[in-house]
Amino acid sequence: MRYLTAGESHGPQLTTIIEGLPSLLPITAEQINYDLKRRQGGHGRGRRMQIEKDLVEIVGGVRHGKTLGSPVALVVKNDDWKHWTKIMGADPLPEDVDPDEIKRQVSRPRPGHADLVGGMKYGHRDLRNVLERSSARETTVRVAVGSVAKLLLKELGISIVSHVTEIGGVKADPTKAEGKSADEIRKIVEEDPVYCLDPEASAKMVELIDETKKEGNSIGGVVEVIIEGLPAGIGSYVHYDRKLDGKLAQAMLSINAFKGVEFGLGFEMARKKGSDVHDEILWSEEEGYTRGTNRLGGLEGGMTTGMPIVVRGVMKPIPTLYKPLQSVDIETKEPFKASVERSDACAVPAASIVAENVIAWEMAKAIVEQFHSDQLPQLKAQIDEMRKYSKEF
Amino acid sequence: MRYLTAGESHGPQLTTIIEGLPSLLPITAEQINYDLKRRQGGHGRGRRMQIEKDLVEIVGGVRHGKTLGSPVALVVKNDDWKHWTKIMGADPLPEDVDPDEIKRQVSRPRPGHADLVGGMKYGHRDLRNVLERSSARETTVRVAVGSVAKLLLKELGISIVSHVTEIGGVKADPTKAEGKSADEIRKIVEEDPVYCLDPEASAKMVELIDETKKEGNSIGGVVEVIIEGLPAGIGSYVHYDRKLDGKLAQAMLSINAFKGVEFGLGFEMARKKGSDVHDEILWSEEEGYTRGTNRLGGLEGGMTTGMPIVVRGVMKPIPTLYKPLQSVDIETKEPFKASVERSDACAVPAASIVAENVIAWEMAKAIVEQFHSDQLPQLKAQIDEMRKYSKEF
Amino acid sequence: MRYLTAGESHGPQLTTIIEGLPSLLPITAEQINYDLKRRQGGHGRGRRMQIEKDLVEIVGGVRHGKTLGSPVALVVKNDDWKHWTKIMGADPLPEDVDPDEIKRQVSRPRPGHADLVGGMKYGHRDLRNVLERSSARETTVRVAVGSVAKLLLKELGISIVSHVTEIGGVKADPTKAEGKSADEIRKIVEEDPVYCLDPEASAKMVELIDETKKEGNSIGGVVEVIIEGLPAGIGSYVHYDRKLDGKLAQAMLSINAFKGVEFGLGFEMARKKGSDVHDEILWSEEEGYTRGTNRLGGLEGGMTTGMPIVVRGVMKPIPTLYKPLQSVDIETKEPFKASVERSDACAVPAASIVAENVIAWEMAKAIVEQFHSDQLPQLKAQIDEMRKYSKEF
Amino acid sequence: MRYLTAGESHGPQLTTIIEGLPSLLPITAEQINYDLKRRQGGHGRGRRMQIEKDLVEIVGGVRHGKTLGSPVALVVKNDDWKHWTKIMGADPLPEDVDPDEIKRQVSRPRPGHADLVGGMKYGHRDLRNVLERSSARETTVRVAVGSVAKLLLKELGISIVSHVTEIGGVKADPTKAEGKSADEIRKIVEEDPVYCLDPEASAKMVELIDETKKEGNSIGGVVEVIIEGLPAGIGSYVHYDRKLDGKLAQAMLSINAFKGVEFGLGFEMARKKGSDVHDEILWSEEEGYTRGTNRLGGLEGGMTTGMPIVVRGVMKPIPTLYKPLQSVDIETKEPFKASVERSDACAVPAASIVAENVIAWEMAKAIVEQFHSDQLPQLKAQIDEMRKYSKEF
Repeated sequence: MRYLTAGESHGPQLTTIIEGLPSLLPITAEQINYDLKRRQGGHGRGRRMQIEKDLVEIVGGVRHGKTLGSPVALVVKNDDWKHWTKIMGADPLPEDVDPDEIKRQVSRPRPGHADLVGGMKYGHRDLRNVLERSSARETTVRVAVGSVAKLLLKELGISIVSHVTEIGGVKADPTKAEGKSADEIRKIVEEDPVYCLDPEASAKMVELIDETKKEGNSIGGVVEVIIEGLPAGIGSYVHYDRKLDGKLAQAMLSINAFKGVEFGLGFEMARKKGSDVHDEILWSEEEGYTRGTNRLGGLEGGMTTGMPIVVRGVMKPIPTLYKPLQSVDIETKEPFKASVERSDACAVPAASIVAENVIAWEMAKAIVEQFHSDQLPQLKAQIDEMRKYSKEF
Repeated sequence: MRYLTAGESHGPQLTTIIEGLPSLLPITAEQINYDLKRRQGGHGRGRRMQIEKDLVEIVGGVRHGKTLGSPVALVVKNDDWKHWTKIMGADPLPEDVDPDEIKRQVSRPRPGHADLVGGMKYGHRDLRNVLERSSARETTVRVAVGSVAKLLLKELGISIVSHVTEIGGVKADPTKAEGKSADEIRKIVEEDPVYCLDPEASAKMVELIDETKKEGNSIGGVVEVIIEGLPAGIGSYVHYDRKLDGKLAQAMLSINAFKGVEFGLGFEMARKKGSDVHDEILWSEEEGYTRGTNRLGGLEGGMTTGMPIVVRGVMKPIPTLYKPLQSVDIETKEPFKASVERSDACAVPAASIVAENVIAWEMAKAIVEQFHSDQLPQLKAQIDEMRKYSKEF
Repeated sequence: MRYLTAGESHGPQLTTIIEGLPSLLPITAEQINYDLKRRQGGHGRGRRMQIEKDLVEIVGGVRHGKTLGSPVALVVKNDDWKHWTKIMGADPLPEDVDPDEIKRQVSRPRPGHADLVGGMKYGHRDLRNVLERSSARETTVRVAVGSVAKLLLKELGISIVSHVTEIGGVKADPTKAEGKSADEIRKIVEEDPVYCLDPEASAKMVELIDETKKEGNSIGGVVEVIIEGLPAGIGSYVHYDRKLDGKLAQAMLSINAFKGVEFGLGFEMARKKGSDVHDEILWSEEEGYTRGTNRLGGLEGGMTTGMPIVVRGVMKPIPTLYKPLQSVDIETKEPFKASVERSDACAVPAASIVAENVIAWEMAKAIVEQFHSDQLPQLKAQIDEMRKYSKEF
Repeated sequence: MRYLTAGESHGPQLTTIIEGLPSLLPITAEQINYDLKRRQGGHGRGRRMQIEKDLVEIVGGVRHGKTLGSPVALVVKNDDWKHWTKIMGADPLPEDVDPDEIKRQVSRPRPGHADLVGGMKYGHRDLRNVLERSSARETTVRVAVGSVAKLLLKELGISIVSHVTEIGGVKADPTKAEGKSADEIRKIVEEDPVYCLDPEASAKMVELIDETKKEGNSIGGVVEVIIEGLPAGIGSYVHYDRKLDGKLAQAMLSINAFKGVEFGLGFEMARKKGSDVHDEILWSEEEGYTRGTNRLGGLEGGMTTGMPIVVRGVMKPIPTLYKPLQSVDIETKEPFKASVERSDACAVPAASIVAENVIAWEMAKAIVEQFHSDQLPQLKAQIDEMRKYSKEF
């Protein structure tokens, strides 16, 4: 299973093609749009999020609400395209046009963005040619891809949810997640302005975001993704590049502005004794093998254990600030204070949706590749069988 | 560039084949053996590390000290193989053999290892069939592969080094690394019993390891890898799976017992303002573009910036404890206290070498794949040109 | 470099995303449309080709006529979509709809098509769900992808052309291609009704196609692709899956209805002595190394030699015949005479364009992956250098 | 499933690592050695084949006769290594050695080999550095890999066999294969000196080989591989690079000296009407869906139909001739008559074994990747189920 995305931030549309989905999977645009809306929400977003409402069109691979087995193509049109046609058009510029007038050329790289290095790499002295693609706008279609993955996981009895555990140093009480199912968590965070489980922390986060915005600064945070209902044995220990944790880590770090990832107790494991880190193995007639705890976050030896996967990612503060950072104009080589292209003070809630969806994709991909996945019904039967087999092992 | 490894912990040998190396790269077994020795060192290792001295043989792809461009095959023989021939031999057992006598069957899965899930996945009721491969013994050849990668990086003017920054909650003073080159760091950690830059912290770590060993427990820690001398523009922002940070994260998480990874300030970024996280862009005639700081750890937009890459990984405490954890015998379904197969109280120093080498491989791979890499001299010329181009951009 | 395609024959559009193109490559829709038109031409096409005129839209990755380095998205809309919206729509059918009325269900698999096995594989009892994707309609966007590849090759001084060498047993005189450049060949075949170099054979082919059509039958043929101006050393002998001939063969056999491929003298080599098959190596101050002949078709040891690549593919007669073949209705299990969905008597000329373009893609991909290909100017410089290096070797 | 190979023709050993095999597959060295012996046989081989007897050692991934699920490592030692240690050793040459004495340097590229272009590509002026790897000696381990694949196929009820259909223009009577099972074919060709089914043709082939040898020339030929017992639906039509015929074609063209491939009627399809090419679909209660003929060679829409796959490859005459070809010394630029490194007049019988085994690998790989393949028993059950499902469709 694989996908490609295309599209620039102010181009006509974002496009994605997903190849390798099982046939007979129910998909509707409505289900995907729900996630797109969640990605545009969260306290602390700038103006652009409010004016554009992303809607997906399914333009291939789905007929009468079900996947055909052929590649699925999704499109999210840019409502604002009419204002950008000249600036971002694919056609060569007519000879008599004054390029300065329509190109909105950017020669001032923003620290923390791909601008400068991207320009060097691809030979663009107009850094707009970089920032239009490196923009987090592209995560829109990655969320759409993840929505499709979640529909698949759901059919297999697997739930996935994300919540915000930290913003700008304000931490949610970790016990709030304990004992809650993915569905219960989803219900709570859907109602919370920063997609957080802990109402007290949430209030503080909102306050901090508002303050930060006022001072023209930005803040980052930590998001947690939980996957429930997994069969044991997805991934493998036999070769280094088949370990599931490695793949999930790559997925998390592929999100714009993410700088770290950890599973279960994560970096806390550097401060604990072995006897306080590992999860004891239990067995009962009714449930088969279980674990007393889930400190390792659902993975042992690069494989799912059957316990929930718990993985967190850290997002840096958005680098585009009203409070500007020093940089250098690549034409004049003069120093300047970096310009503002967008203005979210905090995008962590939105990023939690992106994280949930890219992790969902990676998980679905691992499952589809491990099993016979031509048709959904066959895949379902195998997952059930694997659950039974593991229990009776 | 790609490689495969094979071999079980007590099998005849570990084998690796590396495909895609440039021709004309100088390689000797001696250089690789140095890293293998470092991997076997560090305070806190058990008995096995002392009796086995790993030595590599080059059995393909190298002639008269230089790579041919053909795949390189490396072998590390198991000195102890003579004692394991019957137990681990490839030939079918003769019919008149009592399997119990020679199989050293394992039916008791150790928590925190691949044992139980691996057995389910591959249908092994003798869990030895799992643990022989899931053992960290396999990292021996991954270190060998990384040694070759480091020889390549060195030819390109790129240095890589690792050091231990935390063990069991004892943290090294982070300022000890400041202003030091990779070579300077290497000299210090080569002399340190736990491969740590900070002598005071090192002494405490040694003490803690000894105590932990006495109580039959284990501790984990954090290792940091630094890569210097990189040209800007390795990796790419244009597609999610081409981001270099994602690839390095996958590499780090592919190391046995690693549970998290972070770049630059890492998880601390969740606690800081944007103005304290991003690195300002400077420019001078002599140096071209530089950054005032390196908080992002050398990567922007999934690409190298030219600043050193700084990446850390967290290793959980080794799950094999004298102080046993509860588990279940898969035959009798009776609970038991998990048995001890190995006995390192702390493998973090050794793991720092593994981390250094797997990261070196991933970095070398990214470079080889981005450039014309048939021959080393051509590759060198391009890297130089890219450095010049970036400076003059 | 990679691409994915999506879209069903009667769906809203065909979509493709190309990832990994160098930046700064000039591309216009006009250039791609030229190939799309050629693909729809050729004597012997049915009615559908005449009513639909395929036009491409560039919806990502290109700005002001040049690639950005980001993925390129291309779309070919289906003009006839308004008549198929209900039949092929992505939305679930409303509950009160009579499915029989709008589904145009197919339960009768056509021999020689993917219908029957595709239905089994993906669980479709409505075989329309198979044939809509397995249709050669999809080659439209593969041709578009190849057009982009040809624009890249052209910038590197590499020309590629195809011509029809055989239809229904009528063979073109092979000497007609001798001594002609790719551009000269293109000029001739552009004017020929069956894209053939030999006017006498062409006239006979046209006649045969007309006869065959009258009798409700179909005929296949052979197409030849020639690539000129290649540097030596693309591909590699060092590992089996890096051989360029293998990759080109896979590309050719990935075209609908193609059943064989051969290089240079091809299957004739089974009938010749070694001394009549191999190409002697010559050298001169002015030209460097050359070959006296090109019987091997431009490849030795899985690598380009610098001589033109000559590769042929055989296309079977289109399986959809007015003269029907026996098959079985999957619902009733009753035998029937297979129905006609399309009616080209001969699609070999069109297939020559598909062949040219899929081979162009594979060749461009091999080059882009072997060299430093972030920017077109850097790639060009390397190719020139490689030509010089080979000459002076 | 993937594998890598390493090793030079006169190096210490050939090595391969196979990753992704199901666990619990029975494998013995004896079974692999049988194929290695067949590869060394066939009328027309030179002296080297007679003195070296290739034997495999299993050095990883197999315990007590069964795969573990971990990567399998195979080694074929070079018996003659003691005579080549200095010439091909991995260690740098001591400074006081006269390189001319021990290097056996080659400066004269042989037409039809990788020598010249390989030297240019990898910067080797000693062309031995090329020919040692580009030699067909490497196919030894590819045969070993294919043997393992055949053991897997056999467990799944799938048989594969090859036979020689043409040598130097002498064609076997194609009707000799009709109605024979793979096992019956194998029995006949095992007894034939040129692995041919037709005794009359075989006698002529032997005669022709002897004559050709006398005149210092060489001849090629055509080999056919047949795979029986396949379930329908391996491969896919949904994306161009998932078509099974493309993958098999790449495999065939990856064999040294192979220049073409065709399925079923192959190039003959260019001379036939559609009604004489396609295979009618039949159905009966007892057998389910069958085909009246097998002209398409077992593949439709890039998928297996359940009929035997029939694929042929053409091998060019071996380029190393006693009767020399003109070439150029790369040092002096003087023309010369190309030297003889080996002296087989005809390697087509041996190549038929290579073809059988590389096709077996590709087929096994396609199956393993399509199904849940962790354990052999689970894979077997799925293949059986798929057969049943297809029959009842």
